Amino acid sequence: MAIRLHSHTAELRRMLREQRDQGETIGFVATMGGLHAGHQSLIEASRGDGNFTVVSVFVNPAQFGPNEDFDSYPRDHDSDFELAVEAGGDLIWYPEVEDLYPEEAQTMVQPGPLGQRLCGLSRPQFFPGICTVVLKLFNLIQPHQAYFGAKDFQQLAIIQRMAADFYLDVDVVGCPIVREDDGLAMSSRNLKLEPEDRDLALTLYRTITRAQTAFAEGERDAAKLREALVAEWPEGLELDYLDFRDPEFLEDCAHLTEDTRIFLGAWLNGVRLIDNARLTP
Amino acid sequence: MAIRLHSHTAELRRMLREQRDQGETIGFVATMGGLHAGHQSLIEASRGDGNFTVVSVFVNPAQFGPNEDFDSYPRDHDSDFELAVEAGGDLIWYPEVEDLYPEEAQTMVQPGPLGQRLCGLSRPQFFPGICTVVLKLFNLIQPHQAYFGAKDFQQLAIIQRMAADFYLDVDVVGCPIVREDDGLAMSSRNLKLEPEDRDLALTLYRTITRAQTAFAEGERDAAKLREALVAEWPEGLELDYLDFRDPEFLEDCAHLTEDTRIFLGAWLNGVRLIDNARLTP
Repeated sequence: MAIRLHSHTAELRRMLREQRDQGETIGFVATMGGLHAGHQSLIEASRGDGNFTVVSVFVNPAQFGPNEDFDSYPRDHDSDFELAVEAGGDLIWYPEVEDLYPEEAQTMVQPGPLGQRLCGLSRPQFFPGICTVVLKLFNLIQPHQAYFGAKDFQQLAIIQRMAADFYLDVDVVGCPIVREDDGLAMSSRNLKLEPEDRDLALTLYRTITRAQTAFAEGERDAAKLREALVAEWPEGLELDYLDFRDPEFLEDCAHLTEDTRIFLGAWLNGVRLIDNARLTP
Repeated sequence: MAIRLHSHTAELRRMLREQRDQGETIGFVATMGGLHAGHQSLIEASRGDGNFTVVSVFVNPAQFGPNEDFDSYPRDHDSDFELAVEAGGDLIWYPEVEDLYPEEAQTMVQPGPLGQRLCGLSRPQFFPGICTVVLKLFNLIQPHQAYFGAKDFQQLAIIQRMAADFYLDVDVVGCPIVREDDGLAMSSRNLKLEPEDRDLALTLYRTITRAQTAFAEGERDAAKLREALVAEWPEGLELDYLDFRDPEFLEDCAHLTEDTRIFLGAWLNGVRLIDNARLTP
C-alpha cells in the first residue's frame, strides 16, 4: 500500500531509514506536481530498477522569478497521488515550503556556467533554485538512484554535474522525453495552453524533426541550419532560443555531429515551452 | 599507527568505509596546513569524543582572491603530519587541487547574507570558496562530527548554517580559540608577522579585553563603545572592521548583551589578522 505523507520530514526520514534497514534501495522522483505520463515513466523506471520509490510533490518557490507563474502553477494533490501510485510510487511526499525553506535558511547552490545558458539566460534564478531544492531533497531522502526526464535536459545535465562536483552518493538517471500523440513534449504547463494555441505549440517539435531531417541529409553547418529554422518560425510564438549544443557542457556547436542536441525555448501567450533532442534520433 | 595519504580519493573512501563497517565514528578536522596548537585542540576534541579522526591538509584555491596570499600560504607537509599525529589524528589526508576541483567542476555553494558581512565584505569569494570545499570534504569523508575553531567564528556560523540548510548528516562542533601566552589568537598566518609587528598585532586582543571591561562596567551602547575603541586604534594597523554582532546571524547589535560578540578584522603589512570574543568571557 502506498503511503501519502504531508510535511513531517522527521517521519519521512524514519520511514526511509526503516526501508534501508530492510535492505531496500531507494529510488527518487522529484516533481512539482501536475503529474502526467512523463513523470509516470520516471516512477516506472525507478520501480523497474527494483527501488522503493519516493515521489516528492513540491512547487519550488526558489526557482521562480518574481513575474513568473509560481502562483498559477498547476496543483492537484489527489490526482498527483493517484497517478504516482498507478505508476508504482511507494511513498508520495508533499513537503510544505517551511519544511524545505525554514525562515532562517539562506545557503544556496550556484551551478556555474552550465546554469547560465539556454533557460538560464532569461531565468537567472531558475537553476540555482533547482539545484538548491534538489540537494536538500537528496540529503533528506538519500536515494540510491534519482530519475529526471530529458525534456528538462539542461536541468538533468546540471544535476548530474552537481552530483559529480559535490561527490554525492546518488546515481542521477536520465530518462527519455515522453510525447503526446502529436509530438508535443509532455509538460505540466501544457494544461495552460488554449486549445487554439496547440498548433503553434507544436512548432518546437516540428522544428526538431526538420533539424533532424536536415542533419540526415548532410547539413553540418549550425549557423546555416539555425538561420533556415528561424526563418520558418511562426508569428505569435515568442522564440527565446534555438541553439545547437554539446550534451555535456551545453556549449555552442558550430559544426554539427551525431551527438549535438538542438535546444528550443519559447513563450506562447505567457506559457513557457521547451523541447530538445539529439540530431540523430 | 597513523596513516599519511596523498591524493587517492578512492583509497580514502575505502579506508573510511572500513572504519565505519568496524563501528567507528568518524571525526573530521579540515585544515589548510600550517598546523599549530589551535588545530591540535580540534584534533584532540575529536579524539576525546572517541572518533577515528581524519585531518585534511589543503590550501583551498577557491577561497583566495586574485591578489591574496594563496601562493605564499605556509605549506610544510612533514611538520603538519607530526603535529596532527601528536594530537591524535588517525588519517592525515593531503588532497591535490585536481582531487577537489577537477577541471570540469563548476558547482559552488553560496552562503547567503551570513557570508556577505565582516570578512565577506572585503573578501567576496572567501565564504563561497570555504562552503564549497567543506561540502565536498563532508561528502567525501562523511564524518559524524566535524570540528572548527571559534577564531574563524564567521566560518563556523556559516558552516553550521550550511549543514542545517542542506540537511547534512554531520554535527558541526565549535571549539574555543587557542591563544599564545601574550593573547594573540593562534593562526597559521602569525608565521608571516615580522617580530617588530608583534606588538601591533596584539591590538586585536587588547581591544577585545577593553570591550569586555567596558561591558562589565555597564556599557551597553554599541556605537559609543565602538567609537571609543576605534579612537585608540594605532597607526600602521589597517582596520577592516570592528563590529558588535549576534552569535547566530552576525547581525549588527545596537544594544549590547551578554551574548553579543565583538568581531575584529585588520591587515598588518599585508598579513590578515582576525579575532573575536563574547563580551562576557
